[in-house]
Amino acid sequence: MGMIGGGPGAFIGGVHRIAAGMDGEIELVCGAFSSDPEKSKQAGQQLNIPPNRVYGSYKEMIRSENSLPENERMDIVSIVTPNHVHYEPTKLALENGYHVILDKPLAFDLKEAKQLQEIAKKSQLLFCLTHTYTGYPMVKEARQLVLSGKLGKIRKVYVDYPQGWLTNLLEDPESTHHSHKQATWRTDPAQSGIAGAIGDIGTHAFNLAEYVSGLSVTRICADINTVVAGRKLDDDGTVLLKFNNGASGFLYSTQIAAGEENNTRIRVYGEKGGLEWQQEDANTLTVKWLDKPAEIYRTGNIYLTSFAKHNTRVPSGHPEGYLEAFANLYRNFALCVKAKMNGTEAQPEWLDFPGVEDGVRGMTFVEKVIESGKSDQKWIDL
Amino acid sequence: MGMIGGGPGAFIGGVHRIAAGMDGEIELVCGAFSSDPEKSKQAGQQLNIPPNRVYGSYKEMIRSENSLPENERMDIVSIVTPNHVHYEPTKLALENGYHVILDKPLAFDLKEAKQLQEIAKKSQLLFCLTHTYTGYPMVKEARQLVLSGKLGKIRKVYVDYPQGWLTNLLEDPESTHHSHKQATWRTDPAQSGIAGAIGDIGTHAFNLAEYVSGLSVTRICADINTVVAGRKLDDDGTVLLKFNNGASGFLYSTQIAAGEENNTRIRVYGEKGGLEWQQEDANTLTVKWLDKPAEIYRTGNIYLTSFAKHNTRVPSGHPEGYLEAFANLYRNFALCVKAKMNGTEAQPEWLDFPGVEDGVRGMTFVEKVIESGKSDQKWIDL
Amino acid sequence: MGMIGGGPGAFIGGVHRIAAGMDGEIELVCGAFSSDPEKSKQAGQQLNIPPNRVYGSYKEMIRSENSLPENERMDIVSIVTPNHVHYEPTKLALENGYHVILDKPLAFDLKEAKQLQEIAKKSQLLFCLTHTYTGYPMVKEARQLVLSGKLGKIRKVYVDYPQGWLTNLLEDPESTHHSHKQATWRTDPAQSGIAGAIGDIGTHAFNLAEYVSGLSVTRICADINTVVAGRKLDDDGTVLLKFNNGASGFLYSTQIAAGEENNTRIRVYGEKGGLEWQQEDANTLTVKWLDKPAEIYRTGNIYLTSFAKHNTRVPSGHPEGYLEAFANLYRNFALCVKAKMNGTEAQPEWLDFPGVEDGVRGMTFVEKVIESGKSDQKWIDL
Amino acid sequence: MGMIGGGPGAFIGGVHRIAAGMDGEIELVCGAFSSDPEKSKQAGQQLNIPPNRVYGSYKEMIRSENSLPENERMDIVSIVTPNHVHYEPTKLALENGYHVILDKPLAFDLKEAKQLQEIAKKSQLLFCLTHTYTGYPMVKEARQLVLSGKLGKIRKVYVDYPQGWLTNLLEDPESTHHSHKQATWRTDPAQSGIAGAIGDIGTHAFNLAEYVSGLSVTRICADINTVVAGRKLDDDGTVLLKFNNGASGFLYSTQIAAGEENNTRIRVYGEKGGLEWQQEDANTLTVKWLDKPAEIYRTGNIYLTSFAKHNTRVPSGHPEGYLEAFANLYRNFALCVKAKMNGTEAQPEWLDFPGVEDGVRGMTFVEKVIESGKSDQKWIDL
Repeated sequence: MGMIGGGPGAFIGGVHRIAAGMDGEIELVCGAFSSDPEKSKQAGQQLNIPPNRVYGSYKEMIRSENSLPENERMDIVSIVTPNHVHYEPTKLALENGYHVILDKPLAFDLKEAKQLQEIAKKSQLLFCLTHTYTGYPMVKEARQLVLSGKLGKIRKVYVDYPQGWLTNLLEDPESTHHSHKQATWRTDPAQSGIAGAIGDIGTHAFNLAEYVSGLSVTRICADINTVVAGRKLDDDGTVLLKFNNGASGFLYSTQIAAGEENNTRIRVYGEKGGLEWQQEDANTLTVKWLDKPAEIYRTGNIYLTSFAKHNTRVPSGHPEGYLEAFANLYRNFALCVKAKMNGTEAQPEWLDFPGVEDGVRGMTFVEKVIESGKSDQKWIDL
Repeated sequence: MGMIGGGPGAFIGGVHRIAAGMDGEIELVCGAFSSDPEKSKQAGQQLNIPPNRVYGSYKEMIRSENSLPENERMDIVSIVTPNHVHYEPTKLALENGYHVILDKPLAFDLKEAKQLQEIAKKSQLLFCLTHTYTGYPMVKEARQLVLSGKLGKIRKVYVDYPQGWLTNLLEDPESTHHSHKQATWRTDPAQSGIAGAIGDIGTHAFNLAEYVSGLSVTRICADINTVVAGRKLDDDGTVLLKFNNGASGFLYSTQIAAGEENNTRIRVYGEKGGLEWQQEDANTLTVKWLDKPAEIYRTGNIYLTSFAKHNTRVPSGHPEGYLEAFANLYRNFALCVKAKMNGTEAQPEWLDFPGVEDGVRGMTFVEKVIESGKSDQKWIDL
Repeated sequence: MGMIGGGPGAFIGGVHRIAAGMDGEIELVCGAFSSDPEKSKQAGQQLNIPPNRVYGSYKEMIRSENSLPENERMDIVSIVTPNHVHYEPTKLALENGYHVILDKPLAFDLKEAKQLQEIAKKSQLLFCLTHTYTGYPMVKEARQLVLSGKLGKIRKVYVDYPQGWLTNLLEDPESTHHSHKQATWRTDPAQSGIAGAIGDIGTHAFNLAEYVSGLSVTRICADINTVVAGRKLDDDGTVLLKFNNGASGFLYSTQIAAGEENNTRIRVYGEKGGLEWQQEDANTLTVKWLDKPAEIYRTGNIYLTSFAKHNTRVPSGHPEGYLEAFANLYRNFALCVKAKMNGTEAQPEWLDFPGVEDGVRGMTFVEKVIESGKSDQKWIDL
Repeated sequence: MGMIGGGPGAFIGGVHRIAAGMDGEIELVCGAFSSDPEKSKQAGQQLNIPPNRVYGSYKEMIRSENSLPENERMDIVSIVTPNHVHYEPTKLALENGYHVILDKPLAFDLKEAKQLQEIAKKSQLLFCLTHTYTGYPMVKEARQLVLSGKLGKIRKVYVDYPQGWLTNLLEDPESTHHSHKQATWRTDPAQSGIAGAIGDIGTHAFNLAEYVSGLSVTRICADINTVVAGRKLDDDGTVLLKFNNGASGFLYSTQIAAGEENNTRIRVYGEKGGLEWQQEDANTLTVKWLDKPAEIYRTGNIYLTSFAKHNTRVPSGHPEGYLEAFANLYRNFALCVKAKMNGTEAQPEWLDFPGVEDGVRGMTFVEKVIESGKSDQKWIDL
């Protein structure tokens, strides 16, 4: 695997590397870790990458790797740059025959996203978008529970996603807060696109809603706010949702809920029962029944589906967390890549990772939510 | 105290009687427990009320009590009838000089509500509307915390109110479900008014939002649904909220969230921190801070405000619940009535119970939410 | 009902009165509220007891009530005095034909306890000892679950009972702490007996262990400590337990666990599963299974046994607490008294309250634990 | 790093490899993964180890690595064999100049343990024993909180360690349970030593007690049981503890608590407050105060000590779990090894991993607990 981005000071690049390396399925063999060749070199050295495979730009990386014998060159490209540098490297990687794993969101805007979808489709290569929350074993269990029909027809879907870290104007150039750098690009329209919180975390909430419920959102009504004075993008929003089967619900994403960390939570109710999952207690899935005691499903137990079991490494009672969820995306992607390379069939559990369609859904969601936020009309089609 | 309603088969009447009796401040001395004189008599007998003070109708009760010497007659009337029988007895009681404690909502519709407000105002009598959740000591603590300014300016208010008991059509005349009677009047427009879940529990959520935040809702956008086929009123709804200080948020009330019991929850976030209270863990108030550990406030402890302390009976670690919250309304109301009768001043902690204004706010909320639910316009003024 | 004790400044007397009055089954008609006649009079006045039935001593009370016509006099005596004033009034009440409800522990020492057992037995009167925790509906459900055999043969029983309120020497005569009075008698051997924490709360833990497990403790090994310098009785202790079916476990009671409120918790494990109940979340019973998801039983639901249902007043999701648990003891006792007076049969659910045998078990436990605490021998028979 | 053990079917070997690889500080370069050379070869292939560095025995591994140039050979040996194969490879590795990281417990018995302590001391090499629970950031925070004196002098230490997986006789040769292999060696005296649950998990509980409290256990009184018929070692035990500062408490370890997973929990109380940590909610540390609200410390926040911060990889609200705790041991060990090799000073945060002394303490604990379990004497010195 080669990596684009993830040089000094980046947060998510390190997470990708831990995730990719966890199960021994993927080896990091080269990288263009920064658009500054000097910084890229430094990063490569720290990561024990042979100097001749540390590149000063992603273009150089793809060109040089292309020139290596097929069995020596990288086979997967991992792209962990800010949103405005997703399109070009993804396009280039796909067009040169590399499978791509890309940090979400798919692109800077919907237009780019649809183009990437076309390119990916044509390429017949594998593509993974890192909507991490769908990598948690109990989120997979939740989806399987819904799909099994045990909850009955789904009626309500609620997703909460409160964070508090942008309560103050951290992106203020004079801020010395340790999250200043993270805040800066995320609140800058030139790097993030038209949305702030809705793009950064609202898309996760949206993906979670559709993934767990197995439904599609068809209409939305959004209340979008920029709460902190001086901020250039939204930092808070609630979106009413209507689904294709008649169900309804909401999601909200806010980054100004002072005191909240990263409190993603989903609840889904059907005719016979409901489920609840909260990321801060990730190994637990609560299932509530109309006239029976609620049940507590926990990772690592024999009563779970193969989807949960396949995505767990340690016995029950030994908590797994965010890095393991992330690693599940990488592992499943790698297993599918290997199967493809070996001409064997991928198992359903391996194929269960977010792809380019999820990315297009996400960008559609972002554009429509921002449009709805400005509109006096109540409902807007998605 | 005399009671109107609360005869055989009624649920809330029994709750009112336990609540009224808990602290020995109030004695039930007479009642018109049913519009059926025979049933009223039965109820009176069970409750050890002297037969001559068990009445066949509320009109008879007020007439007869009027004829007693002043120091023998009831001084408070408690009204626990269904919504469509709130206006007439309340009016009559107030016009005859009795303080009134009334089960929510205030009236059948907003017009009635405003008339009762006028009458109550003119009467200079005391009036309490039983929005029970504001009787919990930790809800009072939450309000005091907001009012103290420690959370900073309030930015977000979220209220969840899911129940699951109306997941099926219990009001079906053929239903033998034990909640059939409760379901029937609550889903009947002739008895409940224009709203189902929004009137029954949405008004509690709304009252909680304004009470804890100390703010007023100024605009709403509602998604109102009748999920169960055959039902005549809404059983589910989400309402986006805008507050008078610029804050925003939502409340939702649903009675078809299968597996939920009565899971009222409020979260409020300000510039410096947030709070969370959940009725099913009523003795705990979680306070989250931007850059400090969250704190767990618990009933019965010395660090609480006088508002929480005054509304607690037992030492910390001995849970109090719904009946005690209800009893707090009665006790505070009774203390204010006594103060008024003695010409002394009521303490601020005693005066902290919901009154006729809360009732008018609630009925306004109901009418506007139903209107918004039918409208294509996004925001509607409240 | 007449009450002995519970005058000004007493805590538990007020709790008994709320509990007795909650369900309208019992009316407080007379009392000797203090050994100081003046204080007794004051208390009577506050409680609206007719002055001629407020007595200056329990002896006077029993003598005077005896002289009333049978249908006018009290039928139950509630005794809420400190431990060293349990024996005499209980004896007198029983010998004069009054049913007795007595605050735990049964007596000052085991000798007294056994005499009271004899007297009660001979009297054929009803007797209730207020081990409150067994009044919680979910504790009753826990017992029923064990008795049903669903957990299999019981193997382990663990009871935690940490409090923190005696972390400092509150009984110091110079202390101005608001709990000074409560601390003083509880840590005074002349009023409490040979045990402090073990008598005050350890007996609750012990009763809970035997009640829920349906087993008897046969051997113990105790580590008993007086942690706070200057204290005259134990304030901390752990007791290893062996049960009559071969099960083992422990209980501990401590009053110096700084920061704990009243954190009673019981866990019982059998061959097929286990259960856990924690008083601070009293409406929840967690049942864990060997190879199935854990289940959450909650008060007020239709799937519970008649024992839980009978002891609940409000629908699921409306928490009940300590006062309701206490009231369950009173209600069940009153229902049994009425059945006896009417010559009808009491239902099994009514009979499920702690009696004089539990009291003798408790006093045996206290004596043996204190003996074991001083012994070098490991196990001591109970 | 070279690994001894961890071949096909082993559980803990894989955990060690994930942990060692997580932070890119350590590379697995060779191994003797099984005493069966064929199996070792298979494992090596799967792990992409060059065939010439996959060995058929640990003796061969050490001999061959010795013969490599110093800058090419392994510098750390990781030993993940069952208990009865700890002593010999550890001795050999230390005597040949390799730093050792060893799965707990230190040895088969106390005699071996003390010899290893001598050898390690003489060697001046670094040694880490993987008591994983001390690798959790919030366990480190707990220790720092105690050491800071903020809780005051420590009075009570309670450690719970219930598991349920050995509820049935899984080691029965006819058992087809998926944990059969794990059960077999753990319950076999020839492989595990004199203790079952006490050695397997009791030693973790003991290490946690001493690590967090900063105290030493000086006396014990143990109740040790073999609950499941046919089992050869203890599967359940409770140990009363006395500490060197006068504090007391208990720990228990059981593997027959049906329905429990791996529910390690520690509570420590001092004169001013207490703390509680539970492994199944590993990112939370609850701190309770005598007269202030309890506080919730959470990983990843700026208010934590450097010890917690150094051992966290992702921002607050992104849970880390067991594998990360394990990786913290490896990372800190590797940082210390590097510092030693570079002649620089190791930071206090790096040095905070369990060593050979903890191992000797653990084996002493095991021997004394088993002795106490059989003794009629109450207290035994540790």
